[in-house]
Amino acid sequence: MKTAVLGTGMVGRTIAARLAELGHSVTIGTRDPEAALARTDADAMGNPAFGTWAAGNPDITVARFADAADGAELIVNATNGGASIDVLEQVGAAHLDGAVLLDIANPLDFSNGMPPTLFVKDTDSLAERIQRAFPAARVVKSLNTLNADLMARPGMLADPGSVFVSGNDAEAKAMVTGLLKDFGHQDIIDLGDITTARGTEMLLPVWLRLWGALGTPAFNFKIVR
Amino acid sequence: MKTAVLGTGMVGRTIAARLAELGHSVTIGTRDPEAALARTDADAMGNPAFGTWAAGNPDITVARFADAADGAELIVNATNGGASIDVLEQVGAAHLDGAVLLDIANPLDFSNGMPPTLFVKDTDSLAERIQRAFPAARVVKSLNTLNADLMARPGMLADPGSVFVSGNDAEAKAMVTGLLKDFGHQDIIDLGDITTARGTEMLLPVWLRLWGALGTPAFNFKIVR
Repeated sequence: MKTAVLGTGMVGRTIAARLAELGHSVTIGTRDPEAALARTDADAMGNPAFGTWAAGNPDITVARFADAADGAELIVNATNGGASIDVLEQVGAAHLDGAVLLDIANPLDFSNGMPPTLFVKDTDSLAERIQRAFPAARVVKSLNTLNADLMARPGMLADPGSVFVSGNDAEAKAMVTGLLKDFGHQDIIDLGDITTARGTEMLLPVWLRLWGALGTPAFNFKIVR
Repeated sequence: MKTAVLGTGMVGRTIAARLAELGHSVTIGTRDPEAALARTDADAMGNPAFGTWAAGNPDITVARFADAADGAELIVNATNGGASIDVLEQVGAAHLDGAVLLDIANPLDFSNGMPPTLFVKDTDSLAERIQRAFPAARVVKSLNTLNADLMARPGMLADPGSVFVSGNDAEAKAMVTGLLKDFGHQDIIDLGDITTARGTEMLLPVWLRLWGALGTPAFNFKIVR
């Protein structure tokens, strides 16, 4: 399947590499490919620069946002939440029409220090904003309740836990559910329409505090019943 | 231990009965005991009226809020979130001084229909409002992420899952943690100070949608790691 991943951060890279490993055609979209590829200094967290990472993943193409999305059946929004709408405008509504848009982003607001708050919540969500801005896209919210490694390889945990899907289009949710199974997810819970993304986006505040309390982001929510 | 449970709804009744079963002295606090005990018609959900319930639980005393809290080492806030501060004012700051106040309430706002939204969130929480209003109380937030039956008897699930505690006072959290173990909770996660209650109160939106998706409130969050 032809896929596009928007965003060159750790989430975008991890999802792109996993999609490629599973045999999909993957293009990573970014604002300025030349500038992104020219970066070779590791970041403050010790993560390799995007140019270094891309050189090690020659099967993944790098392109401008709109070019990456051209003809893609699946477009993954792995940008940070604050930039998502702007990036999707660069992709362009024509490229989003009918495409399955897997939205992994969280509406984190770092402007008030740590831990971040949410810039939209409770009566609305980032996923709904995206769906309203691009009504012909088939938005599915998922994977935003996990750290990047566990999104792509939930089997790293002895018990992988649960993952959620929210969206208005049943066919799009079925496609994403199949992909999640290929990633290794076993307990995939369909919460309902895109408004249910309010629930999973509002998991972030407890996720962040669990990260602090447990001293590791390698955990997940499992719905026991 | 002398305990008081504020609130005569299903959460208050369930916690009161469990405390009594474990050998604690329990008084349920309510605004007007005579009026509460006079009610004998089942509610719209088929739950017995408080008077009927109280007649079947003769070991549990019923008293006005302030009388119930008098001398209690543990006071459980099982009122609905919108009424909590008002009820605690009726209890009176003097009765709350030094007491451990286990806050189970959620800041649910039903004024916009279903599912309810939260009337405080993200940058503040109901637990923090209570702690600020009664600075000498030792507030511990816990159990608000479960339905009443599972709060009191998590062993009803084959895998009981996790429960969280938030609070500023280590001794109060230790007391509540001991009680949670007596209830049957096994994985009790200390998230940190009372501000971490923002995280667990913000679990309610996904909890409500999981209830809809699963068709039962008999589930819990387990933190797998």
